[in-house]
Amino acid sequence: MTLRPVRYAASWVLPVSAPPIRDGAVLVDARGRIAAVGPAAAVPTPDDAERVDLGEAALLPGLVNTHCHPELAALRGLLDDLPFDDWIPTLLAAKRGAALDHEDYVLAARWTCAEALAAGMTTLAATEASAAAAQACREAGLRALVYRETFGPDPAQAEASLAELAAAVDQLRRGETDLVRIGISPHAPYTVSDRLFRMVADYARAEALPVAVHAAESVVEVELVRAGTGRFAAGLRARGIATPPRAASTIALLEATGILGTRPLIIHAVYVDADDRHRLADHGATVAHCPIANARLGHGTAPLLEMLERGIVVGLGTDSVASNNRLDLLEEARAAQLGQRVRHASGTLLPSDELLRLATIDGARALGIDDRVGTLEPGKDADLCAVSFAGCNIVPVHDPVSALFHAARGSDVVLTVVRGRILYRDGRCLTLDVEAMRPRLDAAAAALRRARDAWRPRSG
Amino acid sequence: MTLRPVRYAASWVLPVSAPPIRDGAVLVDARGRIAAVGPAAAVPTPDDAERVDLGEAALLPGLVNTHCHPELAALRGLLDDLPFDDWIPTLLAAKRGAALDHEDYVLAARWTCAEALAAGMTTLAATEASAAAAQACREAGLRALVYRETFGPDPAQAEASLAELAAAVDQLRRGETDLVRIGISPHAPYTVSDRLFRMVADYARAEALPVAVHAAESVVEVELVRAGTGRFAAGLRARGIATPPRAASTIALLEATGILGTRPLIIHAVYVDADDRHRLADHGATVAHCPIANARLGHGTAPLLEMLERGIVVGLGTDSVASNNRLDLLEEARAAQLGQRVRHASGTLLPSDELLRLATIDGARALGIDDRVGTLEPGKDADLCAVSFAGCNIVPVHDPVSALFHAARGSDVVLTVVRGRILYRDGRCLTLDVEAMRPRLDAAAAALRRARDAWRPRSG
Repeated sequence: MTLRPVRYAASWVLPVSAPPIRDGAVLVDARGRIAAVGPAAAVPTPDDAERVDLGEAALLPGLVNTHCHPELAALRGLLDDLPFDDWIPTLLAAKRGAALDHEDYVLAARWTCAEALAAGMTTLAATEASAAAAQACREAGLRALVYRETFGPDPAQAEASLAELAAAVDQLRRGETDLVRIGISPHAPYTVSDRLFRMVADYARAEALPVAVHAAESVVEVELVRAGTGRFAAGLRARGIATPPRAASTIALLEATGILGTRPLIIHAVYVDADDRHRLADHGATVAHCPIANARLGHGTAPLLEMLERGIVVGLGTDSVASNNRLDLLEEARAAQLGQRVRHASGTLLPSDELLRLATIDGARALGIDDRVGTLEPGKDADLCAVSFAGCNIVPVHDPVSALFHAARGSDVVLTVVRGRILYRDGRCLTLDVEAMRPRLDAAAAALRRARDAWRPRSG
Repeated sequence: MTLRPVRYAASWVLPVSAPPIRDGAVLVDARGRIAAVGPAAAVPTPDDAERVDLGEAALLPGLVNTHCHPELAALRGLLDDLPFDDWIPTLLAAKRGAALDHEDYVLAARWTCAEALAAGMTTLAATEASAAAAQACREAGLRALVYRETFGPDPAQAEASLAELAAAVDQLRRGETDLVRIGISPHAPYTVSDRLFRMVADYARAEALPVAVHAAESVVEVELVRAGTGRFAAGLRARGIATPPRAASTIALLEATGILGTRPLIIHAVYVDADDRHRLADHGATVAHCPIANARLGHGTAPLLEMLERGIVVGLGTDSVASNNRLDLLEEARAAQLGQRVRHASGTLLPSDELLRLATIDGARALGIDDRVGTLEPGKDADLCAVSFAGCNIVPVHDPVSALFHAARGSDVVLTVVRGRILYRDGRCLTLDVEAMRPRLDAAAAALRRARDAWRPRSG
């Protein structure tokens, strides 16, 4: 695609790699790369450039969401207030009973893309059981790393699971673009056997595939891994699957099975003690921190500060709207701060500058794309977003980074750009027709609701 | 004021006192009272009634903010990331150095009113050191309970403080209206002597004035009250004020000084053990729960569930934008849920229905105005707000109350009505000219920033 150069001006430019710039500008070249960043007076306007003046707004790198499930859009709020060991079976039962087809999941993933763009996200790390997210992200114009999930708690299933994964990956890789890349995800310790973990680790290394895994998220998972007890273990035994103690911790299990050697993205990482953090740092594993989903599901607060102190690279993730129930990375960053301040009884931790890095460059580092995005620097791809500072909920602005996270909300985003292409502006998604999607999304939601209620009839 | 009857229709009506109504309506009579609530088909449309169809939206009782400081609008984000024992001196130094006049504080309070209306609040419980909030709330058309603050940590100051308070209250009471009522607030244990507490309690009883007090908020406050130690104690001793141990807890101190006998509104109530909760319940004291301010300042998570289990009436408060830095009661309710779920490691606590009560009727009960507002019931005053459910961040809606707190944000509010009068609609505040206020607010903010920096020059 050929673009015109565009020169964006805003009352604040936040390069992340440098201090905030009052009355700044960013020049994007015709290839979608950042050509210049600085005070407006110092950024040239080429003759053929379009000028976009954002007025009272912060212009910053696009937000990087290191964990979401785009195909679950129709499940927003469907599973509220369930204990986690009911939450997963209810999710599975609703999906099974609703019998949605591939196009339903693509539609849901498109909806998530539209929502993400409206909230300033330019990169999604998606884990998915279908091929929906990869397709939707391509259509939306988003940057994405899509981890195809594999399941199989029974060791006897391992070959079949791997074969199915490999076939799906072959298919998905044919759709890879410069923006949308494919990885794999052995789902979690309670859905993946040690044998399958080992085979996936070998496969990932052989194929040079990025790996993500839900890990160290809940007490029931910890019980299963450490002692083979608890409700997850009981469920597996009811299916004839043995549940011996597997390792001292989930992270130790991932190390023993070779997963940690693939430098995976660890999703959640709530139950990670000092030994686990040592293992993560040693192997160069990264973390998707999802404070809102962790809190809502009753899992607690991850030791974010301790991980950062240990040098582990951490990004922020919203998780799915089935648990969060939002996609708002500004709120996620604020929740990360609140959670750590409660955990450590301190009012000084995680100042706004650190939140800005978590939501941008650190997320990019966690996904291994920080050479391309995450800061506003000449030569990088122009993945940008702009957040209006004009609302009465934001004025006055003493510090633009504080205003961004503690006064502005995702709803204040007015512009989202991926590699120079404007995908969202002033309330409108330019690549997806949200209104046209609505009837089918509502129908899918109704089918899911019926399936949930049929599975476990609710009183009242 | 004479009004026309108005019949509001919305895809969801949430009466709070009854289950959600799909495709409901609310009829408001010409006196600003609720005349009928029910399914749209069952709610009549008088000949002279205006019809307002809100479409895809939830129509619910106006949100009740049980704690804020309207006059501090220009301090939003000015004091981020300071330890609490620096936060208060920095706030005082900034206010002192900026030397703002009465009109500046009125302007700031007006700004807060506009922001509150835009986020669906219809009642503010304001504590203030000036007469600004009462004036601004009258102008805005908001319902308010304005607690005039008094200070005096030196027992020798008590008479003078009380005399000043009584004079201010006499003045403020002349401006009382049916919507804007006056109360008093002995500020906090670290700024009020036991002697002044006692005199204020007597005065409140004699004058039948509602009382609010910041209490049991921080560790430094607890240290001062229990042992006369810590940084607050050191600060007082430096001013020549003795700091003996005063009581087993702040709540015990308030009981001993007679404050608890006035059935006060306890602001914060973070450090309240089982004995304290017993005292609060016994005296019929109520609580303003401010989860975000408490977390941001490092104070921790109040035992909200334990207070509710003890039968204590609790409402939600945003506190000021100098600590929060927002006024968004939907977010505050969500934060209350997240905080309790972390505290108790449970994913089932505080379901959305309870959040709805906290944000409406329980707030009204905490302020003693639940006979007038807090639910949608015929005969009550028509204090309403409507939250759009049309955004791609909210669809699909499986449960309207979940959607309200976990998908919608304060920015989705489209209508705010107090006693039948529309004060905010579709992005516009109808009683205050926000744009016209802007230059003076920015000037006040700049003066505060200069004063802060002059007092404690910052590096970088």
